[in-house]
Amino acid sequence: MSELRWNALLGEWTITATHRQDRTFLPPRDFCPLCPTRPGRAPTEIPREEFEIAVFENRFPSLESQPPEPAVDGTDLSPVRPALGACEVIVYSPHHDATLAGSSIEAIERLITVWSHRTLELGARPEVEYVFIFENRGEAIGVTLHHPHGQVYAYPFLPPVAARETAEARRHRERHGTCLGCDLADEERADGRRTVLETPGWRGGVPFAARWPYEVHLAPTRHVGWLHELEAEERSGLALALKTLLLKYDALFGFPLPYIMAIHQRPTGGGDHDEHLHFEFYPPNRTETKLKYLAGSEAGAGAFINDTLPEETAARLRSVGPTGEAAR
Amino acid sequence: MSELRWNALLGEWTITATHRQDRTFLPPRDFCPLCPTRPGRAPTEIPREEFEIAVFENRFPSLESQPPEPAVDGTDLSPVRPALGACEVIVYSPHHDATLAGSSIEAIERLITVWSHRTLELGARPEVEYVFIFENRGEAIGVTLHHPHGQVYAYPFLPPVAARETAEARRHRERHGTCLGCDLADEERADGRRTVLETPGWRGGVPFAARWPYEVHLAPTRHVGWLHELEAEERSGLALALKTLLLKYDALFGFPLPYIMAIHQRPTGGGDHDEHLHFEFYPPNRTETKLKYLAGSEAGAGAFINDTLPEETAARLRSVGPTGEAAR
Repeated sequence: MSELRWNALLGEWTITATHRQDRTFLPPRDFCPLCPTRPGRAPTEIPREEFEIAVFENRFPSLESQPPEPAVDGTDLSPVRPALGACEVIVYSPHHDATLAGSSIEAIERLITVWSHRTLELGARPEVEYVFIFENRGEAIGVTLHHPHGQVYAYPFLPPVAARETAEARRHRERHGTCLGCDLADEERADGRRTVLETPGWRGGVPFAARWPYEVHLAPTRHVGWLHELEAEERSGLALALKTLLLKYDALFGFPLPYIMAIHQRPTGGGDHDEHLHFEFYPPNRTETKLKYLAGSEAGAGAFINDTLPEETAARLRSVGPTGEAAR
Repeated sequence: MSELRWNALLGEWTITATHRQDRTFLPPRDFCPLCPTRPGRAPTEIPREEFEIAVFENRFPSLESQPPEPAVDGTDLSPVRPALGACEVIVYSPHHDATLAGSSIEAIERLITVWSHRTLELGARPEVEYVFIFENRGEAIGVTLHHPHGQVYAYPFLPPVAARETAEARRHRERHGTCLGCDLADEERADGRRTVLETPGWRGGVPFAARWPYEVHLAPTRHVGWLHELEAEERSGLALALKTLLLKYDALFGFPLPYIMAIHQRPTGGGDHDEHLHFEFYPPNRTETKLKYLAGSEAGAGAFINDTLPEETAARLRSVGPTGEAAR
């Protein structure tokens, strides 16, 4: 059972998806549902012995192309609607212990091609307002399957973070006639203190007002809204930027750093949008052993407190792991 | 070092507070800084042998009445300003192992009086736009001190959650001429399925579009904006509602349930505000052993997925622990 319920106090939709409580939770590696199906073994989610990258609908979807009718009646104040949309899983590799950081540039480029393809295909559905590609990595942020994978959510509404980003971008465009993402990138490149890496067509840095201690944004230097607009050289530059950043993250404390990766593309639902594509990474660690929690100020008021200086975390990330070209 | 940095992508302030990395972290109980100072022992934060409730400025404040000048230069796009405001700690009891649920109604009423007093005093400062009182309980949501206590943040800006609540309330008022909080409460009382408790002047229930499985909101039935506007009977009804809810929470799984408590009062910075006072509780547990994490969809897109039905969690909370009067 899934449905969308309107949160009237905040003006946003909550996705209520009750079948997910029983979803697969940290299975032993021999029972990994994201590994290839081996001869003589029970079938996994992927009915093949070999593959490079696999994409399929989430077995426990929050949003579906044929959602059930809502179980509860809504009202004018608190409406409810079917959980229309899509939730897909993207398995990065057939190897259970693979990592994106350990993958070849070519393999990461293939993944970028898959992301582009899913954005185009899901974004073309009339009910889809926003295609959101993300990855959760590490038990510290609640991962329930270790096999390397990401997810795609195709929302039938503009989710709150995207709504705020588009509103701020529009306000900036009205005031200055330019793209907010381009102007911020120009300032950051000129300043340099928060830059972590640069690759052909891409720059990565800790944002000026980072909310997470080791938050990093990657953005193309050219004004691009969707992944499928990238030229071949930019796709290669993105693959190198991703690999470089993830090697730096894993070098930071000497263990695979947990993170949330969020890809912010332009909305697909039409309208006058011109936001600048970027990747946001939020690692939960504030030190090697301590996590940042979203507690009172963040969860209850929405005001983030960052216990680190972006200039210092950027310098630290610059100094560990490879520089751009060495990651190849 | 504290400062406010503007997050241009989202249109919000981040509080950068670097001295907090070294804050006291889960000290042994003999070194609790929130216990009374005992004869012959090192002084704690409270230089008294006895007290009922203690309020003092946070030793590791994010916001201060005399903040330092920012360490970084801002720009037009990414301005920076001093971290003006206040961060206070409210110690609920001199007893290290006390709980709010185990306190007498009179003790909880005293705490409500303290909350009212801090709201009035901090809200009267010209630089303060919003007084936010909250409690983080339990290591699962990152508590660093176990002694029962809450906190007050007096922000020099309207924080994002308050900004969205005030915008939605204003939109409702313009369309219907009534208070959104009052209208939602009327609907919920008439429906009844999501009600958890009722006490004189107060109702508690799981919201229609709850974002957390066992989220509960407590709100006064009368249109009230600030705690200090409550009549004596309403203050007593609130104390009973708080005690009842917390006893239910602790009965739910048989252990002290972790939670964030967020008190949403009307902004203090002036303007045409008429929001309805309410308490929001977010326990992180989705089952006895599993936590809900704010991962990709929540942190990266702002879209919450709730794996439970509010009607079912409300029924479960109704059935455990005391009913209102029995909690006295």
